[in-house]
Amino acid sequence: MAYASSLSLRELRRDIHAHPESGWKEFRTTALIAAALDDRGFTLHLGDDAVVREERLGVPSDDVVEAAIDRAREEGAPEAYLDQMDGVTGLVAEKTFGDESGPTVGVRVDMDALERSESTDEAHRPAEMGFGSTHPSEMHACGHDGHTAIGLGIARELDDSGGFDGTLKLFFQPAEEGGRGGKPMSGTTHLDDIEYFMALHLGLGNPTGTVIGAYENPLSNAKLDVTFEGEPSHAGNAPNEGRNALQAAATAIQNLYAIPRHADGATRINVGKVESANPQNIVAEEARMRVEVRGSSAELNEYMLEKARRVLTHAAGMHDVSFETSLYGKTTTFSADDEMVDTVADVATSLDTVSEVVPRMDIGGSEDASYLIQQVQENGGNATYVGIGASNEFGHHTARFDIDEDALAIGVDVVSQTIRAL
Amino acid sequence: MAYASSLSLRELRRDIHAHPESGWKEFRTTALIAAALDDRGFTLHLGDDAVVREERLGVPSDDVVEAAIDRAREEGAPEAYLDQMDGVTGLVAEKTFGDESGPTVGVRVDMDALERSESTDEAHRPAEMGFGSTHPSEMHACGHDGHTAIGLGIARELDDSGGFDGTLKLFFQPAEEGGRGGKPMSGTTHLDDIEYFMALHLGLGNPTGTVIGAYENPLSNAKLDVTFEGEPSHAGNAPNEGRNALQAAATAIQNLYAIPRHADGATRINVGKVESANPQNIVAEEARMRVEVRGSSAELNEYMLEKARRVLTHAAGMHDVSFETSLYGKTTTFSADDEMVDTVADVATSLDTVSEVVPRMDIGGSEDASYLIQQVQENGGNATYVGIGASNEFGHHTARFDIDEDALAIGVDVVSQTIRAL
Amino acid sequence: MAYASSLSLRELRRDIHAHPESGWKEFRTTALIAAALDDRGFTLHLGDDAVVREERLGVPSDDVVEAAIDRAREEGAPEAYLDQMDGVTGLVAEKTFGDESGPTVGVRVDMDALERSESTDEAHRPAEMGFGSTHPSEMHACGHDGHTAIGLGIARELDDSGGFDGTLKLFFQPAEEGGRGGKPMSGTTHLDDIEYFMALHLGLGNPTGTVIGAYENPLSNAKLDVTFEGEPSHAGNAPNEGRNALQAAATAIQNLYAIPRHADGATRINVGKVESANPQNIVAEEARMRVEVRGSSAELNEYMLEKARRVLTHAAGMHDVSFETSLYGKTTTFSADDEMVDTVADVATSLDTVSEVVPRMDIGGSEDASYLIQQVQENGGNATYVGIGASNEFGHHTARFDIDEDALAIGVDVVSQTIRAL
Amino acid sequence: MAYASSLSLRELRRDIHAHPESGWKEFRTTALIAAALDDRGFTLHLGDDAVVREERLGVPSDDVVEAAIDRAREEGAPEAYLDQMDGVTGLVAEKTFGDESGPTVGVRVDMDALERSESTDEAHRPAEMGFGSTHPSEMHACGHDGHTAIGLGIARELDDSGGFDGTLKLFFQPAEEGGRGGKPMSGTTHLDDIEYFMALHLGLGNPTGTVIGAYENPLSNAKLDVTFEGEPSHAGNAPNEGRNALQAAATAIQNLYAIPRHADGATRINVGKVESANPQNIVAEEARMRVEVRGSSAELNEYMLEKARRVLTHAAGMHDVSFETSLYGKTTTFSADDEMVDTVADVATSLDTVSEVVPRMDIGGSEDASYLIQQVQENGGNATYVGIGASNEFGHHTARFDIDEDALAIGVDVVSQTIRAL
Repeated sequence: MAYASSLSLRELRRDIHAHPESGWKEFRTTALIAAALDDRGFTLHLGDDAVVREERLGVPSDDVVEAAIDRAREEGAPEAYLDQMDGVTGLVAEKTFGDESGPTVGVRVDMDALERSESTDEAHRPAEMGFGSTHPSEMHACGHDGHTAIGLGIARELDDSGGFDGTLKLFFQPAEEGGRGGKPMSGTTHLDDIEYFMALHLGLGNPTGTVIGAYENPLSNAKLDVTFEGEPSHAGNAPNEGRNALQAAATAIQNLYAIPRHADGATRINVGKVESANPQNIVAEEARMRVEVRGSSAELNEYMLEKARRVLTHAAGMHDVSFETSLYGKTTTFSADDEMVDTVADVATSLDTVSEVVPRMDIGGSEDASYLIQQVQENGGNATYVGIGASNEFGHHTARFDIDEDALAIGVDVVSQTIRAL
Repeated sequence: MAYASSLSLRELRRDIHAHPESGWKEFRTTALIAAALDDRGFTLHLGDDAVVREERLGVPSDDVVEAAIDRAREEGAPEAYLDQMDGVTGLVAEKTFGDESGPTVGVRVDMDALERSESTDEAHRPAEMGFGSTHPSEMHACGHDGHTAIGLGIARELDDSGGFDGTLKLFFQPAEEGGRGGKPMSGTTHLDDIEYFMALHLGLGNPTGTVIGAYENPLSNAKLDVTFEGEPSHAGNAPNEGRNALQAAATAIQNLYAIPRHADGATRINVGKVESANPQNIVAEEARMRVEVRGSSAELNEYMLEKARRVLTHAAGMHDVSFETSLYGKTTTFSADDEMVDTVADVATSLDTVSEVVPRMDIGGSEDASYLIQQVQENGGNATYVGIGASNEFGHHTARFDIDEDALAIGVDVVSQTIRAL
Repeated sequence: MAYASSLSLRELRRDIHAHPESGWKEFRTTALIAAALDDRGFTLHLGDDAVVREERLGVPSDDVVEAAIDRAREEGAPEAYLDQMDGVTGLVAEKTFGDESGPTVGVRVDMDALERSESTDEAHRPAEMGFGSTHPSEMHACGHDGHTAIGLGIARELDDSGGFDGTLKLFFQPAEEGGRGGKPMSGTTHLDDIEYFMALHLGLGNPTGTVIGAYENPLSNAKLDVTFEGEPSHAGNAPNEGRNALQAAATAIQNLYAIPRHADGATRINVGKVESANPQNIVAEEARMRVEVRGSSAELNEYMLEKARRVLTHAAGMHDVSFETSLYGKTTTFSADDEMVDTVADVATSLDTVSEVVPRMDIGGSEDASYLIQQVQENGGNATYVGIGASNEFGHHTARFDIDEDALAIGVDVVSQTIRAL
Repeated sequence: MAYASSLSLRELRRDIHAHPESGWKEFRTTALIAAALDDRGFTLHLGDDAVVREERLGVPSDDVVEAAIDRAREEGAPEAYLDQMDGVTGLVAEKTFGDESGPTVGVRVDMDALERSESTDEAHRPAEMGFGSTHPSEMHACGHDGHTAIGLGIARELDDSGGFDGTLKLFFQPAEEGGRGGKPMSGTTHLDDIEYFMALHLGLGNPTGTVIGAYENPLSNAKLDVTFEGEPSHAGNAPNEGRNALQAAATAIQNLYAIPRHADGATRINVGKVESANPQNIVAEEARMRVEVRGSSAELNEYMLEKARRVLTHAAGMHDVSFETSLYGKTTTFSADDEMVDTVADVATSLDTVSEVVPRMDIGGSEDASYLIQQVQENGGNATYVGIGASNEFGHHTARFDIDEDALAIGVDVVSQTIRAL
């Protein structure tokens, strides 16, 4: 029996929490889940069969990926699954129950951790109870450890209870943070036959006992990594001989924030991760930054992206420096389908553990399940993005983030019973 | 006898002062001087024979030039000279005296007025004595009226006194302000045989009785007229549909002033005449401005000009607007030759009307006699730019500018006697 | 009988069209209407009794206002009304009909023209038919000539037909363009007892025969006139001695457009009327510009205004220049009341001349009737802003703008009958 | 006998090279020299007696200083000297020879290394011969290891040869890089009685065998550490709630480079070490940078510094963020005295090891011996800054920098014999 098969929902979440893996490094997590589903006879799709390798965005360098594989191996990931992954994380697992002419239902959960350190304060429950992150600078600070556990929980629940008439497809998605994994996972054929589709998120400001039929209308989003490359020179003796990458970056920043607002809806622009490391007496040779744009529709996001590229191009040209950009991540938007929202709401209302049901709520930020949902809807399927309230004192992405584990069972129940009710 | 031939130096200066003509509009002034020199048997070169028409910079529109010709005609300019000018102002006049194998000496004076109104305050002497400008928005506020009078005065003085052994060439240059006339006048062949060359300026902070052997080392200078053309849109209803010429201009201005300083010497940058006329509720369709660069050498001036063009190009590109530039004016730099400076200083020292002689002084600003001087020196000739002190209470280019007319005779004497002494 | 009393609706509109008066200069228009209503026994409120003098925004200089009064006098404005105006345009006129315990109903029309020239093209109907603007640089290019005529038309219609049970108050508002007259007119006590209130606009893209029950949700708006005052210096000889007003303006423009977007709704920013007149060789002493902000709520408008003031303050401080701002105009937002919208829609539907009725439509831009409407609603009254379709080939604010005069009668009918139906 | 006393000039330089200590961390170097001079009966001034503690600029954090002391102790620095230093590096050592009424002569050498890694390439002589840096991220890449050795060499040479009639004061200065140590060392009383003063530098582009009587006219220089502190917010959900430290930094950078050029001479501005670490989806909470200004005179440097502070203040104010600056370093300028230059040149000319003597040369960059030289000259003393040619293939401050050790003896000879010749 696989290791994960022996763990309760709560134990599984804690095991994953203690071994967080950030985007495109989820080798242990993928292998852990794959092994457990293998035990139950699910058909597994791994590596290139789960994710379109060349469409992946924001992939770490080969060294970093190699080190992540080695770490996963040391932490017990079975070699067989690591082999099948061939450097690419992510898993699609499917099983048909009952009447195989029944509908194919997809459930997507994300697995990646954040690149940040976890609090070791004794008041922080994972620290106190011994399941805090054992990986420096990685932490499950957004609840994806819980999502992954719920994903396996749904498989067990349906499998144990005889399932439903149809096929269950579970999408264990890598690299949600930054919007890097959704699009390459949507590029496989596994979504083609999905009639009903659910993604889910814990927390997001709602307490345990609340269920949201649909989080929807995320802002479309794109991220650009930018590097300006100029020519250094001594700022005292030869200021005219340099080509100043920092002036290019400053001009770009000023003008990026000044991209015109759009009459058709909300747009966003922000710049982060700025670094120009030259000492103050040398004209800057290099400046790096990361630009993020958003729009309330895919069109508005494209508008911002096109304008941003224009600003970057000419900020470089103005200061006679070259520049490179690479797309770090990208998401789109969606609205949920009534049939799904109504069914989720009905199911949630019927549960003793649920005290409040909200049919629809805007999600606010961006979300890369958007690409999978959009794909399902374009194929004629119905989809929603379910919110599972999970009380937590500290905000998502902070060092003290934690979730109320009582929400795990609620997540399993809402999704499993919705599948049966469809 | 021509009208000007009957006027004293002082009367002539006042007549010109009362009828100021700004750059490329000096039809009356040119004709006035041409007629007076014709009376004395000088050979006249007018129109295309004085100035290379197509190299002229910063020429007003055809309408404006036509109106200036009509005005000159109404104010008594003889038709014959207007015909020869054929729309191009400026005059080269020459006469050989004594031994024709003697040297050819060139003297350059400028004739243009400024585009500004003159004070009508009673305390302003031209107003009080009735020779204030009769042309709205034009004024001799830099002393070129005096320069022109001195030019004719030198011709008279040499002609009346039997001249010297050699040939005198007088260059009555148009459009000095803005550095627009010097280069096209230097493009003719009239400088080819010049052995000695003098230009001169009144005032410049030095009182009557002071003579400077050489004003020199002006900053090289170039001016660009710039127009950004975008696309208007309603700033409330369709901010995204505009292409904002004003944002392009603001980005350009910020980055023009930030052109890197140069290790090899002084550089300058400035922007003026900025206008973007759109009402505040319309995205700016057009923005215009004039950019000026300088350098302590021609190379540094080119450095600045190249950088400025780069900034303008990419400011336009960044905001998706088109732009046009035209060179409005350009000057270069020079140093005076010892032989000339020494001779001028010796002559000046010998004059009763001269109380102080300064051999050399940096001129500070820019000066378009530079192109003529450079040309003479390249041909192997010697040149200087003589300063004739002329007391005046208010600064050059102000509404109250005036000059001490006693300086006119000093100017004539210094130059005439220097010619004889060479 | 007053001159205007003898004119048909169409003749009146053409008379006003031929004598356009821009904001705060509507002396002839005000007097014309006052005299006609005087004939019919309306009580007139003029000058300080119509508009709070010191709250007026964007008032032209005294010279300009004096000249406008003189022009009005020459064009036949009776002295008595000019006296009562005492330099302040605008009129409130009231009359009680039937049962004086009936409701007080307010109707607001605006009277001002735009500062632009009208086309003299023969294809332009006003030119062809001889009622084009006789005032250079002023033109009724937004239909306020028609609004004014409709205002008088409503008075005539109700007065001739025996009125209704209640009091009619007509607000002939000055200076709508720029949002300058609404607020000072709302500051009087005349709105205090209004139970029902209507403003109206012709055209706005809707053809003759269409009626809109409510144009609503304009963007709140504020305009700032800004002048930066620095210190001039010669850009070649003393660049460090200047304090550069143009650099301040450019820094301000760059950062104004970069004011952060707001999560709560739409915001806008734009800059126009930029001028810095220094010649290119002088560091800019002065730079002027007009800034406009908007928000989909009054709060968002205030957010933008506060941020804009902060940018301006520190752009000035950064370049060591002083600056002055004055509020040129300001509007707020509103939504219409159901009772009014329904009544207008019912009335319009019943008219033969009306072919299409749209209950509500967003107005898009900004509108300074907003202050009057808001005031009425705060006092417990009901209000709407009625749209009267009026076909016209060329857009509002263009040189070829004209309106289909058939819309005038529709405007009178819709409002008059709505008043009776309330 | 102290450890250093047993080492040759070359061995001493290599020992110091292998144990580089960057600014304010020179505990081992100071102790090494102090011990060797103690052996020879020099009077030592250490700690607060060598440097004005509170005037030190750019001092690392207490942790870093503590670690440097510990490292020095481990690497053999005698506890006694560490105690006297009390956390402050730098040494003044003096000894009177012969006739004590003779002049007091000061010699200043600097001791600090750079914060950079040294090449481990086999072709790099220190690597090849085993004296490369043993301290990660510290390297003697500017020749101060040689300067320190020469300083001790001069003491030995004079002491061994019976000295001269007068008092020798040796200034072993810390933290020259960045201009941080000169000013606080000049604040002690040790310069008060100096009649003759020499500083020196190896290399700077001149080959072994060349001696420069005076490197002079460095640019005055100041460095500011700047931190903008704003307020983070989610760039998608609440862009208006942040206060953007990065926008402040970008506005500052744009406007810093645009500080007006100065008519009186050369100025410089540059920005380096820019970092704003927020992820791209968070409005930047913090941005840090280092600004450097220069001027060809102390006044011009102050002009730039004052302008830079103004820009920084208002860039912060514009974006509603706070900011802190601390002066990281500051230097001034100087010209050498003829008596010193002539004597050095005469001495150098007489040496067999010297093949070329250049009396004076502009140093180009900035140099913080300037404060000591200025202080000596203000007290009526004479000073120069001697250049000792030292061939090296790779530039100063690069990973491959090294010096020809033959130059060490030349340095000792030139300075020692100049002292005797004065």
